[in-house]
Amino acid sequence: MLDLAEIRRYAQTYFAESTGCHGWDHTERVLALARRIARVEGADLAVVSAAALLHDIGRREESASNGTCCHAARGAEIACQFLSSQAVPPEIIQRIVHCIAAHRFRNSLAPESLEARILFDADKLDSIGAVGIGRAFQFAGEVGARLHDPAVDPANSRPYSMEDTAYREYLVKLRYLKDRMLTATGRRLAAERSAFMDTFFTRLNDEVAGVR
Amino acid sequence: MLDLAEIRRYAQTYFAESTGCHGWDHTERVLALARRIARVEGADLAVVSAAALLHDIGRREESASNGTCCHAARGAEIACQFLSSQAVPPEIIQRIVHCIAAHRFRNSLAPESLEARILFDADKLDSIGAVGIGRAFQFAGEVGARLHDPAVDPANSRPYSMEDTAYREYLVKLRYLKDRMLTATGRRLAAERSAFMDTFFTRLNDEVAGVR
Repeated sequence: MLDLAEIRRYAQTYFAESTGCHGWDHTERVLALARRIARVEGADLAVVSAAALLHDIGRREESASNGTCCHAARGAEIACQFLSSQAVPPEIIQRIVHCIAAHRFRNSLAPESLEARILFDADKLDSIGAVGIGRAFQFAGEVGARLHDPAVDPANSRPYSMEDTAYREYLVKLRYLKDRMLTATGRRLAAERSAFMDTFFTRLNDEVAGVR
Repeated sequence: MLDLAEIRRYAQTYFAESTGCHGWDHTERVLALARRIARVEGADLAVVSAAALLHDIGRREESASNGTCCHAARGAEIACQFLSSQAVPPEIIQRIVHCIAAHRFRNSLAPESLEARILFDADKLDSIGAVGIGRAFQFAGEVGARLHDPAVDPANSRPYSMEDTAYREYLVKLRYLKDRMLTATGRRLAAERSAFMDTFFTRLNDEVAGVR
C-alpha cells in the first residue's frame, strides 16, 4: 500500500546534497530512529517510515523564504499532494500528513497520534548525543563561529555569530531537549544521549583549561 | 627575564581572529596544557610558556605560501628576531627557538630538549579528546564536508572533500596520535583523551544506526 522505496526517491529530490544540519543524512538518521522507537512502542511502522522520509521536504522553501514559510506546514502540503497521486488511501494520507505537520519543535500544533509523537521524538533525538555534538560543531564551522568559549553568557550572546559556539547551543537548547520527549522510548534514549552530552562538555571545559 | 605578557601581545598580532583549527584559541589551549605538563615533568616553565605562545606565528605565511613555507621553521625564525630585540639572553632564545622549530608532527627535526618534547605533546593533545572531536567537526563544517559516513573507506577517500568527515580524520590520524607522545605526562593525558574519542565514535555509529 505504501511504497517506501518510491517515497524515498521522491523525498530525496528535495535535497541537493547530504551536507548541512537538515540534509538528507538527517532524514535517514531520523528514519532509523523512528523505526526503532515505533517497534518498541507498537506503532504503525509504514506510517512512521513514510512520515520520517517526508518530514523535511518543506525545508528548502522555508530557507528560500527566510523563515516566513513553515517547513512543517509546507512539507505536509507537498506530501499530501504526492501521496494522493500515489493512490494512497485518504485515511493513511491524513495520518502521515499529521505527523509531518506536527513534528516541528516550535509549532503550536501538538502531535496527537502515537506515530506523530514518535516522529517528533526521533527528530529531536538527532540534535542530541554524539550526533548532536557533531552537528553543533559542524554548524559552527559552517557559519564561521568560534570553536569554544567556556565563559559564554547565553543571555548576552547572539546566534549565528562568533559567540555562537556549540557550547552556547548546548547551554540554551540542547540540554533541555530530553524534557520535551513525548514517548517513553524517546525519553529513555534522550536521557542517555543527554547524559553523554553533559559528559562531553564537562570534559571539553576541563581540556580547554588544561586540567585533563 | 622573559616578559610573557609582552610575548603574548606580540604573538597575537599574527592571528587575525580566533576561529579556525589553528587560531589564537588553539595557542591559548596549548599554553595551558604545556604549562600543566611542564609542572609535572619539572621543565623550565618560562621557556615552555614562551615557546607555546609563539609556536604557530609562522602559520599565516605557511597558508599564504600554499604549504611550501614550513610554519615551524618560519615561526622559529620570526621568534628568534623578536626575542633578540627584547634583549633575551642568546642561550634562552636558542632553547625557545628549538621548541618552535621541532614542534611539527611531520617534521624531520626531532625535539631534543624536555621543553621541546612538552610543546610537541601539548600541540598534539589539542587534536584529540573532546577538543579534538569539536575541532574535527568544526573543520568539516568549514570545508563543507559531510557530517558522518560510518562506511567511509580511509584508503579510498580524499581529504578536503565531501568524504572528509571527522570520522575519517579519526580513522586515519587522530586515533594513532596517542602513540606519538614524547613525555610520560603527555602519554597519560593522550591515553585518556584517546579512549574518550573511541567512546564518542562508537556511540556516533550506534546513534546513526538508530540503535542507541
